[in-house]
Amino acid sequence: MSNLPVISDQEFAERAARVRQELATRGIDLLLAFSTESEPAYVRYLSDYWPAFETAGVLIPSEGEPLLLIGPESRTFAAARSRIAEIVALRDFRESSQPAYPGSRLPEWGDLLAPYPARTIAIAGWHLFPHAILEAMKAAAPGVTFVDGDEVMRHLMIRKSPAELACLREAARISELGLAGVLDAIRPGMTEVQIAGLATAAMLSQGAEATGYPVWCCSGPNSCQAISRPTHRKIGTGEVIQLCVGAKVSGYSASIGRPIVLGKAAPPLRAFLQVGLDAQNLAIELLQTGAISGEVACRVHDMIRARGYGDTILYGPAHGCGQMECEYPFLESSSTFVLEAGMTFMVDLFLSRGGTGFRWEDGVILRNGAPEQLSSLRREIIEL
Amino acid sequence: MSNLPVISDQEFAERAARVRQELATRGIDLLLAFSTESEPAYVRYLSDYWPAFETAGVLIPSEGEPLLLIGPESRTFAAARSRIAEIVALRDFRESSQPAYPGSRLPEWGDLLAPYPARTIAIAGWHLFPHAILEAMKAAAPGVTFVDGDEVMRHLMIRKSPAELACLREAARISELGLAGVLDAIRPGMTEVQIAGLATAAMLSQGAEATGYPVWCCSGPNSCQAISRPTHRKIGTGEVIQLCVGAKVSGYSASIGRPIVLGKAAPPLRAFLQVGLDAQNLAIELLQTGAISGEVACRVHDMIRARGYGDTILYGPAHGCGQMECEYPFLESSSTFVLEAGMTFMVDLFLSRGGTGFRWEDGVILRNGAPEQLSSLRREIIEL
Repeated sequence: MSNLPVISDQEFAERAARVRQELATRGIDLLLAFSTESEPAYVRYLSDYWPAFETAGVLIPSEGEPLLLIGPESRTFAAARSRIAEIVALRDFRESSQPAYPGSRLPEWGDLLAPYPARTIAIAGWHLFPHAILEAMKAAAPGVTFVDGDEVMRHLMIRKSPAELACLREAARISELGLAGVLDAIRPGMTEVQIAGLATAAMLSQGAEATGYPVWCCSGPNSCQAISRPTHRKIGTGEVIQLCVGAKVSGYSASIGRPIVLGKAAPPLRAFLQVGLDAQNLAIELLQTGAISGEVACRVHDMIRARGYGDTILYGPAHGCGQMECEYPFLESSSTFVLEAGMTFMVDLFLSRGGTGFRWEDGVILRNGAPEQLSSLRREIIEL
Repeated sequence: MSNLPVISDQEFAERAARVRQELATRGIDLLLAFSTESEPAYVRYLSDYWPAFETAGVLIPSEGEPLLLIGPESRTFAAARSRIAEIVALRDFRESSQPAYPGSRLPEWGDLLAPYPARTIAIAGWHLFPHAILEAMKAAAPGVTFVDGDEVMRHLMIRKSPAELACLREAARISELGLAGVLDAIRPGMTEVQIAGLATAAMLSQGAEATGYPVWCCSGPNSCQAISRPTHRKIGTGEVIQLCVGAKVSGYSASIGRPIVLGKAAPPLRAFLQVGLDAQNLAIELLQTGAISGEVACRVHDMIRARGYGDTILYGPAHGCGQMECEYPFLESSSTFVLEAGMTFMVDLFLSRGGTGFRWEDGVILRNGAPEQLSSLRREIIEL
């Protein structure tokens, strides 16, 4: 595992520089990027640190060095990981049990913001940013305008660098090992949770730093769940087992979704799975640079409708991937962005009808011509 | 695993009734409890649903039935788990990639709040609640006062019911199986991540629905991290390996922390570990009903200081546990609450000095006399 791809210190410095350029262009004085345990993307992208229990931020002024902001218990954790030299602990990033930390002397927002004479502060992670923290910042910085800063980060993150692509490739390779581990071991009578545990251990023993999201297996009547968590239900023969596994490598998350049938799929189920598989392959084929995102989505959905399965569509057929297994931009029929080289997507075909559902999911890297496929292992109707 | 403890439908109905009583007492018309993937406690406590990717809420009026609020992709997932009959999907609870979901018709906050003529709405999860959602609610409900509702939930959740205690006991029992699995398999040269994967698979194969938090192993120079995530570092002999594992059962999370040494601990390390172990045992002994929380904390910290290790204290020595492995109330020297029967704590002794740290952690249930210990497996200096 010594050959695992990583993002270099230089690339982190370049990211900060690009943020500063964006801020200057947009007339923003200061960016605060916010992250939580389950939404670590922005802080990890800028600092390589990703919080657990506590939350975190990265402060980047339009001129000057970035600061990593952490909670009171994460000093040594953050110091061991951060690519940003200066680290400041704030009480507002403490865990939800809200310890008081008697005796500790932590700076307040007024102390933190004093060196930066800002008129406009952008918050990246706007749709998650806690009201209570924004109010504390406003009280400490009267007259400052606070704006949504997500667009700053999205603009930087939407096209991946060679090092980021290497991380995604490795995450997808290990995700395939997780899938293979499940296909080797899966037996009727195992529980959904147990299968999720097997996949997790397989990926963590082969180079993943974590799962990219809370992976799941959902089966039979649970298979129709587009987002799910595994239960103690025992899997059986002939039913759809929806498996969604993904590894995280150096902050980058891949995913693979496969329907699995133990034994034989009945003909109507087989036909339904085939529609999803054909739609998955069509979407991968259509994800070519220069295409308009919404047109790709419409063509895939039109094909599903033409086969008589229009009612089974919930979303999609693809979404950005990178730091998060599912990140901006979402590719759907109302999308208007142009597909460009270096963008990365999870092609994510989830269909469901009458209590039965399944997902085909694989990542792609856009480039001239057909996209590079991050995973393809057993992209076929799997009957074991 | 058919004997796993669960919370009954009746207990969920009683929780809603108790919320309504609290709202009436406090002059609050409506409670919105908010949760995320990594902070699922409030929504799970009131509905049994816990989100992934998306966020969620539970709306409880002072008179009337509760509503579960979910994101657009979680309908079937939520329907399979929710103990609340009525479920409403809102765009504001969508995932951070912010899909538009063209064609879907979701209610807006105005539609949702219209049936409730509220003057005061309390938000539980106040310190996490997104500013953007609060602004949308304010625009839809002009003249309404929004207040911090955490105290409503804390008041209900701080003393556990018999069914909750059964869940915690089972979570601790399975956490011990996770620890035992690691102690059987651990060898020099394994990576921290690999060990976290082993512990996870062991717990998920023996009845845990998930880990209670992102479990970790941190070793050698990483051992001083109070909160951590595992890395690809290979563990070695003679160094401290800090293992923190915890299982989740029916929403309740336990944890066990142990320092492990492969081979022999050098005498200074052994002495340091012993101080932590003695402090852990003292704290467990002192957690008796009727005691004042801050006095317990001071006595434990005084003992550590008297042994010459005052500089190694970061927090603690205990915190509430239940839905979250670390939940309100935090027991520290500034705490003033009285310990009562039915309260549950994780006794959590983390000490660090000069790059070496470790945690002793076990849960307890307060009752008359000495507390019931949720776990005690190998609470001794472990040299393998």
